[in-house]
Amino acid sequence: MTAHSRPTRIAWQSIALAVLLFGCTAAAAQSDALPSWNDGLSKNAIVEFVSRVTREGGPDFVPVDQRIATFDNDGTLWVEQPMYVQLAFMTARVKELASQHPEWKTTQPFQGVLEGDMKAVAAAGEKGLVQLLAATHSGMTTVQFEKIASNFLATARHPKFHRPYTECVYQPMLELLAFLRANGFKTYIVSGGGVEFMRPMTEKVYGVPPEQVIGSAVKTKYEFQNGQPVLMRLPEIDTIDDKEGKPENISKIIGRRPLAAFGNSDGDQQMLEWTAAGPGLRLMLLVHHDDAEREYAYDRASAIGKLDKALDEAHSKGWVVVSMKNDWKAMFPPED
Amino acid sequence: MTAHSRPTRIAWQSIALAVLLFGCTAAAAQSDALPSWNDGLSKNAIVEFVSRVTREGGPDFVPVDQRIATFDNDGTLWVEQPMYVQLAFMTARVKELASQHPEWKTTQPFQGVLEGDMKAVAAAGEKGLVQLLAATHSGMTTVQFEKIASNFLATARHPKFHRPYTECVYQPMLELLAFLRANGFKTYIVSGGGVEFMRPMTEKVYGVPPEQVIGSAVKTKYEFQNGQPVLMRLPEIDTIDDKEGKPENISKIIGRRPLAAFGNSDGDQQMLEWTAAGPGLRLMLLVHHDDAEREYAYDRASAIGKLDKALDEAHSKGWVVVSMKNDWKAMFPPED
Repeated sequence: MTAHSRPTRIAWQSIALAVLLFGCTAAAAQSDALPSWNDGLSKNAIVEFVSRVTREGGPDFVPVDQRIATFDNDGTLWVEQPMYVQLAFMTARVKELASQHPEWKTTQPFQGVLEGDMKAVAAAGEKGLVQLLAATHSGMTTVQFEKIASNFLATARHPKFHRPYTECVYQPMLELLAFLRANGFKTYIVSGGGVEFMRPMTEKVYGVPPEQVIGSAVKTKYEFQNGQPVLMRLPEIDTIDDKEGKPENISKIIGRRPLAAFGNSDGDQQMLEWTAAGPGLRLMLLVHHDDAEREYAYDRASAIGKLDKALDEAHSKGWVVVSMKNDWKAMFPPED
Repeated sequence: MTAHSRPTRIAWQSIALAVLLFGCTAAAAQSDALPSWNDGLSKNAIVEFVSRVTREGGPDFVPVDQRIATFDNDGTLWVEQPMYVQLAFMTARVKELASQHPEWKTTQPFQGVLEGDMKAVAAAGEKGLVQLLAATHSGMTTVQFEKIASNFLATARHPKFHRPYTECVYQPMLELLAFLRANGFKTYIVSGGGVEFMRPMTEKVYGVPPEQVIGSAVKTKYEFQNGQPVLMRLPEIDTIDDKEGKPENISKIIGRRPLAAFGNSDGDQQMLEWTAAGPGLRLMLLVHHDDAEREYAYDRASAIGKLDKALDEAHSKGWVVVSMKNDWKAMFPPED
């Protein structure tokens, strides 16, 4: 250490202290909007970002029409363990339909679904997935599918939390969605889940209208039934909205780069990278599931919601990593 | 004719007269919003529809979030003759790039494009189209393509009207877009044109932001160039947003059925049918190009913007058919 270095270090400490104080002050002004977030680096980063991009005349100001925020759904807005909600839906559908298909008892991937043997299901690969999609998600009109999905979401309950899946949503993230909208952001869901599976609930649960939901999709076919036009859902994948598919679909459907992006797994890594690569101030945030007591704890080794490479990139690039355990006061909304 | 029939006929005439008077009264209240529309059945139908779906407490009231209006672009919002604007763009691109491809002088479909022989281009079929797309619309990033398209739109001029294509837009339709938005509608473009070709101009010209533009698209690929993520445009068609593709994409991307739909050709027939099949009051409208003097006159036999089956359906179902010649006072906005 040279004689010169001590004052320099003190200067840096002063700046750090000033930033911290300033950050806290800015956060305090709007902190009521995020009551379920504990004070700390994550909350500060969010409030400071929003404060800077909305400060008219400031160096980081962004016009309202460019304030696009994209949120992953599974594991970011609602619970994805012990299985994706849509996989629970698919399982329920297979069980409902099994009496019409006695052969499923001895045919994979159906046998695996009926017996809860997810390894057998996984072993059936993409071909198996398409067979499951065909049997449970296709062969009906879009209107019929909406009713089936709505009915499941209205009646099914999470095995650990014993409440509807639509109430297994993270209260701090609901507050964050509302906080961003109150600051002129247009909030989008960009999920690997099926777009038509999510739409029946996103407006009521998240305040996100159907036209701001992007997801995986099957192809549909316009045809006539009893003289009326319908859209039949085909057993054919149109898009998988995961990993590289996320920025590709954001570009195709929104046509603007997000200003802020929120995820929780390696499936969100490309969306956050694409967001970060835009000019000016951006916010990239990962929800880290580290609360085994109130929810689940999983990351690098998880089969569902694996968070590994994206976590490394978050650490190396200074993206916000939210500790559910430390940053969140509450997990779910109060029971109805 | 029986003694009974005369009073009945008079009663019907009275009702018709009352409807006409009422319609005119309702129209008058808001007619300033559509100054380039002549008074008549088309204008009345539009104003009456908007008045009814926005009248709170009325039998036809529709909440704001469900007021979705979809507009075709080519021939509905801007001129599509003597060739689609995007075909003019493709032609200009082929000419620009021809010096690097001497073989194009003797290879279809490029030779046809260079010599203005559209029959030869058409004869090359879908394979030829994909070759042209590959040469002119692919192999660059989405950001690079946006610059190329913007530059064309800023500099190219229409061969007949000698003004930029972005000024060959129909003034009455600009007023209609604004009138609908003023009444709480979200206005979308749903066009066979390329989504990334249109987006550079839709906000400025039509007031339609990029996220409300749906169109044909090529596939893109997320990759890294010099350490930065980019989306490369591939020579592969992702979706053709025409005919059946319109309701399919509306359902996938918007996730709501339009309340009103506007087109001008058989390529819009399915979008209007899909709109009409929803419950409650809906507005379906076709722009009929019957003004050879101020624009072009074409319909059933046209290679571009053919209006045949959709015109029959419009007549049989009472959809609004706009006569450009009779219904519109002005064609284009005043010159800058």
